[in-house]
Amino acid sequence: MSCKCYAALVPAGPLVPHTIERRPVGADDVAIDIKFAGICHSDVHQAREEWGSALFPMVPGHEIGGFVTAVGPNVTSFKVGDKVGVGCMVDSCRECQSCKEGDENYCATGAVMTYNGKYKYKHCLEYTEDGGKPTYGGYSQSIVVDKNYVCRIPDNLDLAGATPLLCAGVTVYSPMAYNGLKAGQKLGVAGLGGLGAMAVMIGKAWGCEVTVLSRTENKRDEAIKELKADKFVVMSNEEDVKSATASLDMIIDTIAAKHDIPTYLDFLRQNGKFVMVGAPAEPLDFHAFSIIPKRKTITGSLIGGIRETQEMLDFCGKHDITCPHEIISGDKITESYDRVVKSDVKYRFVIDTSTF
Amino acid sequence: MSCKCYAALVPAGPLVPHTIERRPVGADDVAIDIKFAGICHSDVHQAREEWGSALFPMVPGHEIGGFVTAVGPNVTSFKVGDKVGVGCMVDSCRECQSCKEGDENYCATGAVMTYNGKYKYKHCLEYTEDGGKPTYGGYSQSIVVDKNYVCRIPDNLDLAGATPLLCAGVTVYSPMAYNGLKAGQKLGVAGLGGLGAMAVMIGKAWGCEVTVLSRTENKRDEAIKELKADKFVVMSNEEDVKSATASLDMIIDTIAAKHDIPTYLDFLRQNGKFVMVGAPAEPLDFHAFSIIPKRKTITGSLIGGIRETQEMLDFCGKHDITCPHEIISGDKITESYDRVVKSDVKYRFVIDTSTF
Repeated sequence: MSCKCYAALVPAGPLVPHTIERRPVGADDVAIDIKFAGICHSDVHQAREEWGSALFPMVPGHEIGGFVTAVGPNVTSFKVGDKVGVGCMVDSCRECQSCKEGDENYCATGAVMTYNGKYKYKHCLEYTEDGGKPTYGGYSQSIVVDKNYVCRIPDNLDLAGATPLLCAGVTVYSPMAYNGLKAGQKLGVAGLGGLGAMAVMIGKAWGCEVTVLSRTENKRDEAIKELKADKFVVMSNEEDVKSATASLDMIIDTIAAKHDIPTYLDFLRQNGKFVMVGAPAEPLDFHAFSIIPKRKTITGSLIGGIRETQEMLDFCGKHDITCPHEIISGDKITESYDRVVKSDVKYRFVIDTSTF
Repeated sequence: MSCKCYAALVPAGPLVPHTIERRPVGADDVAIDIKFAGICHSDVHQAREEWGSALFPMVPGHEIGGFVTAVGPNVTSFKVGDKVGVGCMVDSCRECQSCKEGDENYCATGAVMTYNGKYKYKHCLEYTEDGGKPTYGGYSQSIVVDKNYVCRIPDNLDLAGATPLLCAGVTVYSPMAYNGLKAGQKLGVAGLGGLGAMAVMIGKAWGCEVTVLSRTENKRDEAIKELKADKFVVMSNEEDVKSATASLDMIIDTIAAKHDIPTYLDFLRQNGKFVMVGAPAEPLDFHAFSIIPKRKTITGSLIGGIRETQEMLDFCGKHDITCPHEIISGDKITESYDRVVKSDVKYRFVIDTSTF
């Protein structure tokens, strides 16, 4: 099926109108009419080939929201008209321990990413002898995805605002769950972009006291008033820093640029956990004495599995959480990338695919 | 009470015969006739003032084994003749959350270390207005310790061999317990000094497959034959390294010199934990991409609490574990320090205090 989309035709090229083919609906497939697609910072990195060699033409987008238009004969979990989402993966090996445990994001041989990937597993209809057809993401008007990689979006959530949950939401939700964050604990959120905003909102709904650790004063008001953070620490403000030192049980670190890890570790109390979900390109320093004396932990987390993504969506449904966003048309994608890099967005751009 | 000991009278000075006073037995005190004291690498660091300013004369020693000679009227948990041990702490605030939870080693205001510390808490008989009398450690023939900081050494364990458990044993046992190591999992042990040897033996008793990660080939035989490690990886041997890559659930890292953390992280499988118990003085590098994609963890651990030390001693009693050691007389302490620095000991020097 022919499908309108926006694509980067060459590395770092503009995002321009393009057309791709979607596969026919297979026995286990769900066909989705895409209404909205969120723009994630990783879209920019990949479209600009900043994370190494990538596949072009590239149709980015792994925060996808829409409605089911057709299902294959083996699909009982979805029906035409359902409000659904697709996140970072559209397939995985299905055989390794991680896949069996629902951690497809940690698939031993690698999940098939929603774009800039290849349908490399034989069980997929788009598998080919030479390693599989390329995947094309959500900056498009439709997609066909195996039922096991589709999630249900709660009825009460606005679709455009729910769309970014598929990556930004689960990326911060997963480490809170995995690392045993408890209601009543103190959660820090380092960096206040899309991931950070989601971490504040989900952390509050979790029952935590949430402290934002920011490099700039100018987000204080929106953090406290709009996102309902309890506390706002500007890293250069000595008074602020002192007030939060050794107080936090967990920090979700969303900063993707190089930053001084030990400075952030100082905010943790005994047994505190520092969880990196942003990945700076440069190596980072720490000192054994920053972690040993109070048994602190530095760890990381990569998006989330499908079961966990559904759990997160249900949690957001229950607590009425969506991502604050700015809706844009397809012809604004290219310029929005520059604004993403400058953090000039509150907090996610969401593309309206009806403008294609 | 006057007590013979060995002390460093000045920073980096030789360890020489000396005499100190021990306090009278208070209502909550246990007096101990010290038979053996282990030499820990941290004794060397402190006696040489390598960890910053220290207190002299210094009587090192925080691996203490002996027999009870007297108890105060409030003491019901010990009686004269009991075989007991004292580890790294002889007091703590007793009021903070850590102390209340039995993690005196993480006392919020600082535990009183067995030597090179001061009896800084008012509840102690040796508290003084100017910050408390100095503590003197195990290289001595007797000690008087509050009952809450004394542990029972199982009858079946040889006293000299059990003495190093008080620091080396609990230092590796504590992170295995805290980080949820399970029987059947694969444990790596980086570095094969005193801590490493204990980690291998305790790891085996835990029911784990144990892999030693060593920088030198020459410890292979003893690791496999004497310590019963299952596998020995020489870090410079490509074949060895390949055979253990991405296989381990936890690594206890006992290396106290600068080393390349990411190289060791490569041995961890998904969700694997890298636990530092040795503290290199230099900052260490890692890369977010070393931990995020497989949700790995870097953490640390500092000795253990008193309850945990007792649990470890009971565990070692049940599994008949003591530390392989070389017994020395007091006049050999000074030269033994040089051998400790060169790792020329299998695996602990234990001082026979009857030679003082």
